[in-house]
Amino acid sequence: MNDTKIKESPLFWPAHLKGSVLWVLDETRIPEKLTYIKIKNTKEAVNVIRQMKTRAFGQFLVVFNTFLLELKNNQNFSSKVLVKKLERCAESLNKSRPTFPFSEVTAIVVGWAKTALAKNLDIKPFVEKNIQGYLMGIRMRRLERVKQIADLIKDGDRILTHCNVSGELAMAAHLCQQQNKKIHIFATETRPFLQGAKLTCWELKQVGAEVTLIADSTVGSVIADGLVDKVIVGSDRNCANGDFANKIGTYQIAVLAKEFGVPFYALTQPSNKIPKGDDIPIEIRSEKELLNYEDKVIVSGKVAGLYPAFDIVPHSLITDSIAINVN
Amino acid sequence: MNDTKIKESPLFWPAHLKGSVLWVLDETRIPEKLTYIKIKNTKEAVNVIRQMKTRAFGQFLVVFNTFLLELKNNQNFSSKVLVKKLERCAESLNKSRPTFPFSEVTAIVVGWAKTALAKNLDIKPFVEKNIQGYLMGIRMRRLERVKQIADLIKDGDRILTHCNVSGELAMAAHLCQQQNKKIHIFATETRPFLQGAKLTCWELKQVGAEVTLIADSTVGSVIADGLVDKVIVGSDRNCANGDFANKIGTYQIAVLAKEFGVPFYALTQPSNKIPKGDDIPIEIRSEKELLNYEDKVIVSGKVAGLYPAFDIVPHSLITDSIAINVN
Repeated sequence: MNDTKIKESPLFWPAHLKGSVLWVLDETRIPEKLTYIKIKNTKEAVNVIRQMKTRAFGQFLVVFNTFLLELKNNQNFSSKVLVKKLERCAESLNKSRPTFPFSEVTAIVVGWAKTALAKNLDIKPFVEKNIQGYLMGIRMRRLERVKQIADLIKDGDRILTHCNVSGELAMAAHLCQQQNKKIHIFATETRPFLQGAKLTCWELKQVGAEVTLIADSTVGSVIADGLVDKVIVGSDRNCANGDFANKIGTYQIAVLAKEFGVPFYALTQPSNKIPKGDDIPIEIRSEKELLNYEDKVIVSGKVAGLYPAFDIVPHSLITDSIAINVN
Repeated sequence: MNDTKIKESPLFWPAHLKGSVLWVLDETRIPEKLTYIKIKNTKEAVNVIRQMKTRAFGQFLVVFNTFLLELKNNQNFSSKVLVKKLERCAESLNKSRPTFPFSEVTAIVVGWAKTALAKNLDIKPFVEKNIQGYLMGIRMRRLERVKQIADLIKDGDRILTHCNVSGELAMAAHLCQQQNKKIHIFATETRPFLQGAKLTCWELKQVGAEVTLIADSTVGSVIADGLVDKVIVGSDRNCANGDFANKIGTYQIAVLAKEFGVPFYALTQPSNKIPKGDDIPIEIRSEKELLNYEDKVIVSGKVAGLYPAFDIVPHSLITDSIAINVN
């Protein structure tokens, strides 16, 4: 299998460092516009994460690249000061959003910086090289997972997905076409941000895949009607016992899949840092994001809104995981 | 208990005949505007139903009132011709939308007209009197059900509802306040028409009830977190075996309620005309209603949308029904 045959989705690698600027794909503008936001420092990186202009794997990429920006922006400081600056950068990133394991990711980079300091090595090239090597490794493993997803999908399969798995499903769908497998994908809308309608449908159409959009309320109906052969979803945070957090709505899809014996597959990044799902802090986002549709208020008067951004899928509901090692 | 203490929601009785005009509440304009559409004949009545300007109990009211319009518009015709005209009116209404039992309802009125013809009675006053008496009976039974719903709700209860039950839940919430019961209601958005966000939240706030809006994807999360004590939903069509059709999304709520032992109550209008849920025709509405949010397209390119307007709740998932006899 030749990798170059897989058309890469812009969502697969949504941030690129060029010189001292990090260009981050603005996922909130898709499908209207494919546009990148200019990020020059940690503060701007935190904002782009907090406003969900980037999300899922995008956050992971932004974290590593933000350290590269810090290294560039502070190259004239002493090693000790530079480590302090990277630690402060880590703290800011860790506080950006609660559910995604920012602290696990930033600890890797701060660890490299401390190693360099302890060994009296030049911090900037050492950490830069480590980050670049690490991201290259992640890239290879994600491309490998795209093939594994395509292998999982059989000719005639009808796949249900939720939210957006950062390019991997669209690329697997493209690979399936080359393997002459005819597949169909049901994408949920994924209110309130509509990542399914805006991102997943868009990237699947880019590769010419067959996709049907359904409301989040229609999952039970299509599964009960026997229209779904497999569920494939991503994961935002993984626990030692196999539980994981993913976009709100994933849990109820898992329950419905189980109810009808439809296999439920999760794309995971295993971690032992947190024992079980209950221990994952769930981000409660502003009710405004639910009470409004884009700029338009959809309710009248003082109605409260509850918008947990994620829910927990217990490991008992997972048929199998396609894991990549990120440690 | 004095009925006059219950504040009546405009959604409880959303159509009023004045002279030869039927004024139908435009539910698609709520919460922005409380406005009524002028209906003068069967064709206009069918349109208002098909475009979902009215829905649920509104359709039921529009059907009976449309016959009253026909009787007024055709009073100079012979009895035989008048019956034919009412039969044609019934045919048009029956074809308006597939899931709601229009044919069961129109058969009642056509039956009265045929009885009058057979008995050589003056059709217009006979059918008018029957319709008025019938609607008065339904009104009393619905007011009675509002009290039954309030009785079901205990102090401290947190109720989850879906779509909109045409005023009954809001009026029950108002009654609960007078009974000094503190309750909280979770209303789902109910995409794509957003009846939960637009109608249910609005009418609950009108009576000062505490309401929290959640996305349709958040039902599993709030139930799993123990935030819901009871589920109360309406029903659009009932079967002999107890299965019922209701707004898409009701089925998955019922599965989730069962999973966590949360009682699931349905407001039903029992009928033996259809044996079981599988026999109910499910309306598939235009994908445009899903691919657009109001006037704005939310997907890019040629994406298909699947929008079944209803799903089926099997009787095994229903804890109890609060029924009103409509036969």
